[in-house]
Amino acid sequence: MPTTTALPPSVLISEVGPRDGLQSVSRTMPTAAKLAWIDALHGAGLREIEVCSFVPAKLLPQMADAAEVVRHALGKPGLTVMALVPNLRGAEAALAAGVHKLTLPVSASAAHSLANVRKTREQMIEEIRNIAALRDERAPGVKIEAGISTAFGCTIQGAVAEDDVIWMAEQAIAAGADESGLSDTTGMANPAQVQRLFKRLRAALGEHAGAAHMHNTRGLGLANCLAAYEAGVRTFDASQGGLGGCPYAPGASGNVVTEDLVFMFESMGVDTGVDLGRLAAGRAALANGLPGEPLYGMTPEAGLTKGFVYANGRRPATERLLAPLAP
Amino acid sequence: MPTTTALPPSVLISEVGPRDGLQSVSRTMPTAAKLAWIDALHGAGLREIEVCSFVPAKLLPQMADAAEVVRHALGKPGLTVMALVPNLRGAEAALAAGVHKLTLPVSASAAHSLANVRKTREQMIEEIRNIAALRDERAPGVKIEAGISTAFGCTIQGAVAEDDVIWMAEQAIAAGADESGLSDTTGMANPAQVQRLFKRLRAALGEHAGAAHMHNTRGLGLANCLAAYEAGVRTFDASQGGLGGCPYAPGASGNVVTEDLVFMFESMGVDTGVDLGRLAAGRAALANGLPGEPLYGMTPEAGLTKGFVYANGRRPATERLLAPLAP
Repeated sequence: MPTTTALPPSVLISEVGPRDGLQSVSRTMPTAAKLAWIDALHGAGLREIEVCSFVPAKLLPQMADAAEVVRHALGKPGLTVMALVPNLRGAEAALAAGVHKLTLPVSASAAHSLANVRKTREQMIEEIRNIAALRDERAPGVKIEAGISTAFGCTIQGAVAEDDVIWMAEQAIAAGADESGLSDTTGMANPAQVQRLFKRLRAALGEHAGAAHMHNTRGLGLANCLAAYEAGVRTFDASQGGLGGCPYAPGASGNVVTEDLVFMFESMGVDTGVDLGRLAAGRAALANGLPGEPLYGMTPEAGLTKGFVYANGRRPATERLLAPLAP
Repeated sequence: MPTTTALPPSVLISEVGPRDGLQSVSRTMPTAAKLAWIDALHGAGLREIEVCSFVPAKLLPQMADAAEVVRHALGKPGLTVMALVPNLRGAEAALAAGVHKLTLPVSASAAHSLANVRKTREQMIEEIRNIAALRDERAPGVKIEAGISTAFGCTIQGAVAEDDVIWMAEQAIAAGADESGLSDTTGMANPAQVQRLFKRLRAALGEHAGAAHMHNTRGLGLANCLAAYEAGVRTFDASQGGLGGCPYAPGASGNVVTEDLVFMFESMGVDTGVDLGRLAAGRAALANGLPGEPLYGMTPEAGLTKGFVYANGRRPATERLLAPLAP
């Protein structure tokens, strides 16, 4: 009789760098460099990537090549190709391009919703309803994710009522979204709050409860991801090199760094499917595509720990994690 | 009848910057600058400070003024004045200077013990026994802490058996130490391991279980402190500006940053007794005493969150956390 080996627990790391990261940078990464970066991310084992946003090129020239980027990413086996859409018009373009998953940010803060998208929260829920109707008509297999932004606090209105956060998530699912996660847009979350709110979200939404999108503004990114994991979350947004996520200040990276997050989970024995050695090629591709852009992350500099073993039992070829940059 | 208000949970932040931090820097901070820094740390509410180590000045000229620093620190009300001593000779000098607490690093890794102090682990336990006898004779009120270094892995031998870690801690207490904590000397710890090992330590040592000394080498410092807190630990070592802790690489700070750790706990509703606004004066004193030295920490740059309230209900005077440097 064959021995049954228990699989290690696992998480999905959803890489948001090519959208969230590049959108925060004022320069535009050349299309070829974006494609090389996405290739490297996929090659390292990432299986969900937010590759672009569908927004007017006049507003965000960084994303003018969205359809081309999607077309390329669709050729990667096993990859869920995700795009951010702010509204129905963006959703129409994204569905036409053939994405697998749409992500739509809806704010739990009334003040932030008006300031950010000039719509009330109720109008954003209505937008989800319209997008879901369009999806049902044109591409019923496409998933819709509603990310509840400012879920842990708002720089305009301060505290955001937890009831408001859960209410928005419930409304988003009722309007046709498949999943709803929580975003620490402003870097205000703390681990106790993260645990409390994700437990409530999971109790309210069940299988529709979505990803944790944490920022590292005050250094708490990984601690907040750990708290979310302990509350049962199994999908985590992160950005290679910590690119993007509205950093407040020099040195204060915004998004959680993919490399550090993967290292944390793998060293805990939680499988991410990601190879940190191969991820180094992504970091080099990113650095080559945006020369001089500051990249964050401690693990790439420090390397793997002596004797490191991945959660699935693999041993790394080397403890070094920095690939040489292209000449 | 008066209303009974439950006190928030609390932790003790043990500031190690003036010893662990300054010992890692090749330059020597002038004595007056050290005293100003210690004044500012005490003024911010820190109630345990590792102010120096008693080692031959030939080996560590940074610590040549140890007795003078201790004398000054002893004048601060409510402050536990701690010094590191590597051996009996150092303990003799520290007791003569009048410290409240001795801390002695003992390695759980046989290879690290030999490489670091040229003594076996058994010889280090014998050293604790001798130091405890000296303490009993000369200053019975002084506490002895044995910090188990390389408790989470060793850069020389790789993995360190958890049984060895617990055994060393038990031996240290049996030899006369009052408490024994665990140190992630090499930045190899992960949250699952931290929880597991501190739970074992607390089960083995009871009230003698001591502090968590975590490093931020791979960005996991705060996540590991959170894991230790969840395992019941209530004393945490940290260093202002992340100074010290054997950083591996540029950008990879070693010690957990006091400012970020205080922010994490206070935002979770866990009282530290530390005022982040006043801690800014310590950061300025440190920067003035070591011009050009890189300081880490996200919270000082980002400032407090909008509407921030300390665990004990205090409201900060301002959300800004950077004090102007002296001219």
